[in-house]
Amino acid sequence: MQSDNPTAAILVIGDEILSGRTREGNAHHLSQVLNSIGIDLREVRIVSDDQDQIVEAIRALDKSLGGRWDMLFTSGGIGPTHDDVTADAVAAAFGVGIEINEEARAVMTARWQARGVEVTGNRLRMARIPLGARLIANAHSAAPGFHIGNTYVMAGVPEVFRVMVEAIIPGLPTGRASVSEAVEVMRPESDVADGLREVAERYPDLSLGSYPFQREQRYGTSLVIRGLDGARVAAAMADLHARLAL
Amino acid sequence: MQSDNPTAAILVIGDEILSGRTREGNAHHLSQVLNSIGIDLREVRIVSDDQDQIVEAIRALDKSLGGRWDMLFTSGGIGPTHDDVTADAVAAAFGVGIEINEEARAVMTARWQARGVEVTGNRLRMARIPLGARLIANAHSAAPGFHIGNTYVMAGVPEVFRVMVEAIIPGLPTGRASVSEAVEVMRPESDVADGLREVAERYPDLSLGSYPFQREQRYGTSLVIRGLDGARVAAAMADLHARLAL
Repeated sequence: MQSDNPTAAILVIGDEILSGRTREGNAHHLSQVLNSIGIDLREVRIVSDDQDQIVEAIRALDKSLGGRWDMLFTSGGIGPTHDDVTADAVAAAFGVGIEINEEARAVMTARWQARGVEVTGNRLRMARIPLGARLIANAHSAAPGFHIGNTYVMAGVPEVFRVMVEAIIPGLPTGRASVSEAVEVMRPESDVADGLREVAERYPDLSLGSYPFQREQRYGTSLVIRGLDGARVAAAMADLHARLAL
Repeated sequence: MQSDNPTAAILVIGDEILSGRTREGNAHHLSQVLNSIGIDLREVRIVSDDQDQIVEAIRALDKSLGGRWDMLFTSGGIGPTHDDVTADAVAAAFGVGIEINEEARAVMTARWQARGVEVTGNRLRMARIPLGARLIANAHSAAPGFHIGNTYVMAGVPEVFRVMVEAIIPGLPTGRASVSEAVEVMRPESDVADGLREVAERYPDLSLGSYPFQREQRYGTSLVIRGLDGARVAAAMADLHARLAL
């Protein structure tokens, strides 16, 4: 699909995903949000709680560090325990120091005191923020995320990840949201390949995809046409219907 | 976790994942299979149906091409339509040609003829296999996957991906499967961080993780200890129980 939309990557951090213990869902959620505001998600990486691996991925993915995509969103590894190394890795990737952020400390302390929770060194570990970063509000619990360069660092707990995504949306550059139309046909993918390719060639500005499925022992294919211009998508779908005699 | 286990990456290929239309599940399935046979999954990447992006990822991830991990498993992009570019990308990554593979043609033709399905050019497109690759059997439908270098190329349709994984397991190098024990405590993560870190320091051969959750307005934490030696894992868990007064 041709697009001048801003581009993005997601970096998911966590051994528990790679071991198969936890099924990743934050990237799927964010992919839908980004699509709806016209940001083209181009790559997702999942790495372990390993500082070197995280640093390398951030540098490869954030354009402000010479990486490939306009924006990078991370999920996970900003909690209070020894295996939470994301904040240190981000500081290392950007070549800045990391220390207790007074704004973060104030936000967290106020929240804890309101709930009668003791402020401990472990809790305050979550206020360690790379120098120069701006906080991302956490409407769910106490510890904030942060934003530095073009990288947005968010928590892995799904409820917290979602409120942090809500918090950053107003500040993100946006593009044109794509429009898609889909149709299911009860034919194998190879039977619709010619018609699909012909329409793809006539509409080079659109993205045409085909996704095979099986239902009650029969083969079917979902055909999806996606683009920025709804009228073009509708015209291409009409063309596809005609070619496939739907 | 200290381990001499072979390492692996998964590369998922498909615009439909990045657009948020489809939730990825093959990597999660394979992560559990690999864990059970002692292969350490270290990285997952999801990229679009873009040949250059796929080529670069294969080279970065397959050790036989100078990449980082011992094995690479791919999912998606080997169907019969114009947006299926994985086989060409793999051939390009390995610097080999690609043509109709006679063994694949024979397998597919026999299967189609048994079902009374016509053999068309589009269907035969799925028999295009990089030169030097070996086929991966497909017990579900007709088109095979293939294996070249240390890269295993499999279909994205979940049912087909799973039978291809079953087909390759006997030929994979294996290591020691990890053992894990988990306990849930109804305390916030920061309250257990000290005990967890102390046990992690005493058992550097084990991996200790903590995963916060919320239930009925209360904070809790899942504590997971993982390692290759079940007795060590059990000893560390007993130590953790004592330190946290569980």
